[in-house]
Amino acid sequence: MVNLSIIGATGYVGLELVRILSAHPGIRLQKLVSQNYVGKKFSDIYPSLRGICDIVCSDLNINEIAKCSEIVITALPHGVSKENVPELLQLGVKVIDHSAYFRYRDITVYEKTYNATHGQHELQSQAIYGLPELYRDKIKGAILIANPGCYPTCSILGLAPALKSKIINPASIIINAVSGVSGAGRKAETGFSFCEVESNFKAYGMTNHRHTSEIEQELSSLAGSEIQISFTPHLAPFKRGMLATIHADLSKEMIAKGVTTEDVLKIYTEYYKNEPFVRVQPLGVMPEVKNVVGSNYIDIGLVVDTRVKRLVVVSTLDNLVKGAAGQAVQSLNILLGLDEGTGIKTSGMYL
Amino acid sequence: MVNLSIIGATGYVGLELVRILSAHPGIRLQKLVSQNYVGKKFSDIYPSLRGICDIVCSDLNINEIAKCSEIVITALPHGVSKENVPELLQLGVKVIDHSAYFRYRDITVYEKTYNATHGQHELQSQAIYGLPELYRDKIKGAILIANPGCYPTCSILGLAPALKSKIINPASIIINAVSGVSGAGRKAETGFSFCEVESNFKAYGMTNHRHTSEIEQELSSLAGSEIQISFTPHLAPFKRGMLATIHADLSKEMIAKGVTTEDVLKIYTEYYKNEPFVRVQPLGVMPEVKNVVGSNYIDIGLVVDTRVKRLVVVSTLDNLVKGAAGQAVQSLNILLGLDEGTGIKTSGMYL
Amino acid sequence: MVNLSIIGATGYVGLELVRILSAHPGIRLQKLVSQNYVGKKFSDIYPSLRGICDIVCSDLNINEIAKCSEIVITALPHGVSKENVPELLQLGVKVIDHSAYFRYRDITVYEKTYNATHGQHELQSQAIYGLPELYRDKIKGAILIANPGCYPTCSILGLAPALKSKIINPASIIINAVSGVSGAGRKAETGFSFCEVESNFKAYGMTNHRHTSEIEQELSSLAGSEIQISFTPHLAPFKRGMLATIHADLSKEMIAKGVTTEDVLKIYTEYYKNEPFVRVQPLGVMPEVKNVVGSNYIDIGLVVDTRVKRLVVVSTLDNLVKGAAGQAVQSLNILLGLDEGTGIKTSGMYL
Amino acid sequence: MVNLSIIGATGYVGLELVRILSAHPGIRLQKLVSQNYVGKKFSDIYPSLRGICDIVCSDLNINEIAKCSEIVITALPHGVSKENVPELLQLGVKVIDHSAYFRYRDITVYEKTYNATHGQHELQSQAIYGLPELYRDKIKGAILIANPGCYPTCSILGLAPALKSKIINPASIIINAVSGVSGAGRKAETGFSFCEVESNFKAYGMTNHRHTSEIEQELSSLAGSEIQISFTPHLAPFKRGMLATIHADLSKEMIAKGVTTEDVLKIYTEYYKNEPFVRVQPLGVMPEVKNVVGSNYIDIGLVVDTRVKRLVVVSTLDNLVKGAAGQAVQSLNILLGLDEGTGIKTSGMYL
Repeated sequence: MVNLSIIGATGYVGLELVRILSAHPGIRLQKLVSQNYVGKKFSDIYPSLRGICDIVCSDLNINEIAKCSEIVITALPHGVSKENVPELLQLGVKVIDHSAYFRYRDITVYEKTYNATHGQHELQSQAIYGLPELYRDKIKGAILIANPGCYPTCSILGLAPALKSKIINPASIIINAVSGVSGAGRKAETGFSFCEVESNFKAYGMTNHRHTSEIEQELSSLAGSEIQISFTPHLAPFKRGMLATIHADLSKEMIAKGVTTEDVLKIYTEYYKNEPFVRVQPLGVMPEVKNVVGSNYIDIGLVVDTRVKRLVVVSTLDNLVKGAAGQAVQSLNILLGLDEGTGIKTSGMYL
Repeated sequence: MVNLSIIGATGYVGLELVRILSAHPGIRLQKLVSQNYVGKKFSDIYPSLRGICDIVCSDLNINEIAKCSEIVITALPHGVSKENVPELLQLGVKVIDHSAYFRYRDITVYEKTYNATHGQHELQSQAIYGLPELYRDKIKGAILIANPGCYPTCSILGLAPALKSKIINPASIIINAVSGVSGAGRKAETGFSFCEVESNFKAYGMTNHRHTSEIEQELSSLAGSEIQISFTPHLAPFKRGMLATIHADLSKEMIAKGVTTEDVLKIYTEYYKNEPFVRVQPLGVMPEVKNVVGSNYIDIGLVVDTRVKRLVVVSTLDNLVKGAAGQAVQSLNILLGLDEGTGIKTSGMYL
Repeated sequence: MVNLSIIGATGYVGLELVRILSAHPGIRLQKLVSQNYVGKKFSDIYPSLRGICDIVCSDLNINEIAKCSEIVITALPHGVSKENVPELLQLGVKVIDHSAYFRYRDITVYEKTYNATHGQHELQSQAIYGLPELYRDKIKGAILIANPGCYPTCSILGLAPALKSKIINPASIIINAVSGVSGAGRKAETGFSFCEVESNFKAYGMTNHRHTSEIEQELSSLAGSEIQISFTPHLAPFKRGMLATIHADLSKEMIAKGVTTEDVLKIYTEYYKNEPFVRVQPLGVMPEVKNVVGSNYIDIGLVVDTRVKRLVVVSTLDNLVKGAAGQAVQSLNILLGLDEGTGIKTSGMYL
Repeated sequence: MVNLSIIGATGYVGLELVRILSAHPGIRLQKLVSQNYVGKKFSDIYPSLRGICDIVCSDLNINEIAKCSEIVITALPHGVSKENVPELLQLGVKVIDHSAYFRYRDITVYEKTYNATHGQHELQSQAIYGLPELYRDKIKGAILIANPGCYPTCSILGLAPALKSKIINPASIIINAVSGVSGAGRKAETGFSFCEVESNFKAYGMTNHRHTSEIEQELSSLAGSEIQISFTPHLAPFKRGMLATIHADLSKEMIAKGVTTEDVLKIYTEYYKNEPFVRVQPLGVMPEVKNVVGSNYIDIGLVVDTRVKRLVVVSTLDNLVKGAAGQAVQSLNILLGLDEGTGIKTSGMYL
């Protein structure tokens, strides 16, 4: 049993970590750190966990945490991680961090995107971008894992085989994505109140969503050249789930070859054949949010539109699981040398 | 054209007043007073009204309001009305008030229920409880109308004929009611956020909801004796709408007579035969929220359960319309001598 | 008062026509024709209309209908219109038809898209595509109006100024659209049941949705050259509403000029300045479904993404109103020489 | 590993059984029998299970099933069980049945309630009502378990301690219950389509819902006398979950004693102290649907209303889990001598 603590345990990502890790056979939950609920039982905040996780929330005491934890998962707002993570690492604790702070290989991109100074250049160089499908080997030996954003996970995995196999023109990528409301976290804001969100649908963060640069970093790495994309997120009236509809022009070579949907599906299926959590859909089947909600799966479907010579990929995941807490546990399992699916190999809820 | 201003225009009841009154042929909207949005166009806050109501919100200046308004509708939190309403009346402006402040004929009940002192005994004696189905004649000549609460409107109209005709034992009334989330107003509270409310259902205010005493006041008046009820409100995951399921034992006389559903339906239909906004459902048809949403109707259905000798009444309305803004406009029309349905005789949305 | 009948009155578009026309001051509803509910009161099918429209539904008898109606609106499945509409026209009745049958200027495109033979070449040449913003003058004198599809209305109006002013490269248009569930009509299908749709989100009709060719017809006409587009519709968990997110590369001229969001907004605002139902959003404001639901408005917002040199337009409407019944009434008003907004100049519900 | 088959596997209860049992360490799923999907992979019908349960559905062949299964769970419509269950038992297979067929100790009550003849008097006498909290010992040795209905489970467990301890007057019980839409099963009916159900709320089955007699059977047994209740179910716009608000007059003895909420909570807590899936809420906390959705828990809260001398109990569960499939697995675990929580001791989803 590995001792693990969570800093930022009472937000929605924290809740999801507690939900998953309470049932994880290799983990013993130690400290649940919360700014707002110190001294309160976790199950009094989230009564769904009554009888399952009745740990009393504690305040942030890095030394205390380090004493009882081999690993810490942080689910903190952007910027707070900056202070806690280095201290934890210095005390010999491995960290999986949910913020954007350690996700950028080029610190200047982080600084520009988040309008902040970084100041941890050395640490950054040790951080591994925690996307197992791309960086499994590096995750194995990591001390600091930067858990990817939800939109990036959904977009990057939707495009990786297409870029690797030069199926598309990298300059033509347009990503239209839709997120459930839990992506915004647990917030007391009018804009996320039931009456404002229910039955509504809108685009937001037009042309300047922060995840754009994170997606571009990984797509550029996959393509082997600098890529700029159009990324337009939308807010939809459901709690969990995310779906990206990705458009790109077929590359000249592929057009010349007369590439078909079957061809590209074969490439995708081959690319992901050993992945425990990527499910490439059969020909003619497109993924739906309800098939992944509550699970760590990402489902990917695609069509080649021969008329307009474009590839359309649809990828979907649960923003709180594969898009956050589940992916962190997947990396945790890799780090610990456990079966990668331990505690997360459950199906979605469908209903 | 009558000049009318609204104080508290940017909450959900205010929005609904503006939506209805913008299309009202006898009203010219003057001031829209808002604490938070002074200087902002109403249609910038609620873009659904762009091109329909682009009035700039103003701050609270009673003299200014009185100068340009014959009538003011206040949609303010409990307690704020206490200060504004007397001043408006003194300046010769008639007022329709949405708060609970002027609803109680016995001030001590108000003071106990709202844990506050009243201090306007004289004014209170002039206030009319604005339920047209019970007090139409008094509303005609009123200078101050206390617009009823949503739960009270739904409950009282569901029981009035039964109490008037001694169909039930008044000591046995149990009201189970369900409200949409807009009943809580426009709030930046975690408890009303989309993620906390969607797909959820809960009881709240168990045994001590403030509307209990307001319901009891009117039911007692209808029964001609002091009545105490069980009232249990619930929060359901929809925006608009309210439904009350009301249980009461049949009176001994009715049991002796072998009263049937048809008998009681006849009594209800007769009682409400001239009411423009009460729709007693045909035998075998029970009301549904979707039939009244967006309209000023209250739909009422009922069944006599001969097995257990109880009457079950189901009544439903839109909490923002017949439960608030629409009912205020109904009273306004009566006050102005207009057709009672002016501006509110529209059907619900169904979808 | 103009006498009007509706064929296909008990589907959702029919319901919406009845809801709107019941309150229309220039129309007297005559026959409500329904295949499934002959002899039943309309308000027994849709109790939201009890007391407002209690007309008894009748079966399809073209002669009877023609006797009592100057205008007929048909809301029938594709193909049924083929038989009824010519007969009505021959009897001197004007028709507004909701099917796709008369929407195509090139009959071969209809036949290919709908996999059917047309056989009414002559009539087709008299049909006017009922999009007032493009064909107002022709609608005035029409005897047969083909009411546009919902996706086409949303897409075409979102792109018209951009194509007219050569802002974008017409070969690069990618439309990602989202529809509420009512777009599928009133259906007893598992796939549209609450449990399958709620909290779900999916793409459908990938690369082959029938509205693609209808959109292309009008965009080509606007651009003055043949256009092929990518069109990807999605199903979202709300009842009413539609939102299109449209991407297109800026034209070389516009890139050379350094065109900005403000510039393009100015062009859009100018283009639609006399339109009663198109609301171009202010700079920095993007449209949301909740602002148009229940109304005949289409709201349009846009951003120029100078980084990737693309225009992103977001347009939204209520698929049952501006996308169907409301637009039909708008054309009806034009046809009758009434104020274009009669009966439909109401705001959306917001809540 | 115990071999288990499911008859009626592709309805929503079947789906839930497959979801739970796929992760159950003591069960090997054998046949998944489906009327409509023979030859189709289970994960093609419910893609949430792709990679988790890809069993091909088979048709109903009792001998085949009996050969490979020690236990069969049937999730069939009322009446179909009548034919299959006896055959399975004769072939030595134990059965857990979800229909109402074997739930009634008095066959005449079944026949009256379901308007059908029974004809299996002998078998009936061996059937155990599968409510572990009341019949755990009998379940241990059972060959045929009649899994309780969802409303009965929610109602009976909400009232058991109150009846056992004579807290209430058994003649005064009024149950107002609310169910999510999945309770109706997977149905292609307009009445359960998204557009008809979403944002709607209604009562149904007024005074004659079939679960009434099932609830009365168990409450009568608990009270030691024949009880008749008022039971009013409602349909609410969420997929999973059920909540019962139960009213009853305090018994004279309790009124005399001046019983308090604390007193009754103590009795409930004591009564359920060893139950793994009943969570009595702390003083002042009322249960909410979101805390049990996705789990096998039933949460119960209560208040004594001293003013009107009534007890109000609120109980909530997931209709597909504790109200159906989860409860069946709980009984299965008891039957197999496993830890009662095996495979079902997971928390709800909260979000």
